[in-house]
Amino acid sequence: MERYDIAIIGTGPAGLEAAITAKVRNKSVLLLGSLGTSDKVAKAHTIENYLGLPKISGADMSKAFLDHAKDMGVEITPDKVNAVYALGDFFSIQGHTGNYEASSVILAAGMSAMKPLIGEMEHLGRGVSYCATCDAALYKGKSAIILAYSDEDEAEAQFLAERADQVYYLPQYDFSGNLGEKIEVITGVKPLSIEVSDGWATLVTDGKALEADGIFILRQQIAPSQLVPGLELDGNHVAVDRSMKTNIDGLFACGDITGTPYQYIKAAGEGNVAALSAVAYLAEKKKAK
Amino acid sequence: MERYDIAIIGTGPAGLEAAITAKVRNKSVLLLGSLGTSDKVAKAHTIENYLGLPKISGADMSKAFLDHAKDMGVEITPDKVNAVYALGDFFSIQGHTGNYEASSVILAAGMSAMKPLIGEMEHLGRGVSYCATCDAALYKGKSAIILAYSDEDEAEAQFLAERADQVYYLPQYDFSGNLGEKIEVITGVKPLSIEVSDGWATLVTDGKALEADGIFILRQQIAPSQLVPGLELDGNHVAVDRSMKTNIDGLFACGDITGTPYQYIKAAGEGNVAALSAVAYLAEKKKAK
Repeated sequence: MERYDIAIIGTGPAGLEAAITAKVRNKSVLLLGSLGTSDKVAKAHTIENYLGLPKISGADMSKAFLDHAKDMGVEITPDKVNAVYALGDFFSIQGHTGNYEASSVILAAGMSAMKPLIGEMEHLGRGVSYCATCDAALYKGKSAIILAYSDEDEAEAQFLAERADQVYYLPQYDFSGNLGEKIEVITGVKPLSIEVSDGWATLVTDGKALEADGIFILRQQIAPSQLVPGLELDGNHVAVDRSMKTNIDGLFACGDITGTPYQYIKAAGEGNVAALSAVAYLAEKKKAK
Repeated sequence: MERYDIAIIGTGPAGLEAAITAKVRNKSVLLLGSLGTSDKVAKAHTIENYLGLPKISGADMSKAFLDHAKDMGVEITPDKVNAVYALGDFFSIQGHTGNYEASSVILAAGMSAMKPLIGEMEHLGRGVSYCATCDAALYKGKSAIILAYSDEDEAEAQFLAERADQVYYLPQYDFSGNLGEKIEVITGVKPLSIEVSDGWATLVTDGKALEADGIFILRQQIAPSQLVPGLELDGNHVAVDRSMKTNIDGLFACGDITGTPYQYIKAAGEGNVAALSAVAYLAEKKKAK
């Protein structure tokens, strides 16, 4: 497996800036995230205070960022990351569609305003999971409920449906797709809480409750504490110092995930610092060998 | 005297970003520095990693930044700051051409690579000064040596020469001006060290030594410790936390002055954070009243 110098998780301003700075420093870069940069950027109205790009729409800013990255030879690998494991000399990154290795990792995954459901955290790994493709093999002949937050989740549902006997798909976005006969789509239903007992999971909603062998929550972002075991937090955010170092050697973070203010130029500035800190970490590691 | 909400010292990326963010938040802003943004930016060759402005020259970036600031109604007050005094409820700012007041201050003055001359620091205020216009009244009938680093210093020399009997002007830049008969211009001479005894200052150079009542060093930036009495440093840089707070209430810092990496997007990102922290400080202060 190719081992990248720097894996960057997230394609908002922090992740893209980290990627171009790493490229300038001739590092091999794996940039994981959504192809269209972050939803938050693209949907923003006029942004007035990103120095150098006056009164720009979110869509135009998004395009400017992606064009810049492309111009620098930065490619986005479209995948959602489920877990990052620090294995001493390198990191193993578990995505929904692939596994990756890198010598250093930069977390730039943004902050989700979404709160976990009641019961979600205590049943994580025991009836609740964030990655349907990862666990699909375990669902042969079984049933599953999928909470989906974007049309990118539809492919994941279909992959699971190839193994599972029964899949309930609860889109939490404007759904207009067709997932075929093997998937039961239930629209207009809000999840409220999760209960698990005797290996049987129940999703309580504002409509009727649903039961299955497991529940998949396909959020755009998962809580940083779930993403990286052992990661030190500061409230809901990843704890970093001014060089964007986390408590884990070789792991850096930048952008909204490190705290307020949630501003584009702040995120980009931190992406730059994180990338240069990762470059310094790699040089240090090489010297120590 | 008008008391501004936020005074910003420095017109590089950090200062300009702080100014436009403060404007977005409807604060009254005093932006002090050079009209042409920072020399460092304008003279840079291609910058590859300022996200959104791919492969841009320093001159073009400088123009983009200044145009953005102008577009937002941000005006630069061209002055060099000699000292900032924290007076409890507000700050008093001593410039070369004026004095100002502000409820909060953001230091974005950049980092000078220049080392102090031997003897400079120990004789500061006793034979050595950074502001000729400030001290001009004291030089009636006296003599002075001026070390000048930019053609902007020429006006200051002429102002001093209106009071002093004798002014030696040692340009440390490409000099092509004409300062009139009252000023003796000495080109091609490098200052080495300063000695002061019995109220008489000697500038030792790589040519002949010069003597006068006082020596003025008109650097673009002066050491932060000299700029703000009581300011806590971290090595040569201003010590700040992640919200860009210094140890002095209401005083924030951003950009190169807070430490490496010396990168434009990092400076701009910090300018944004410093401005929002100043806004929060002002709101807090108002509430406490």
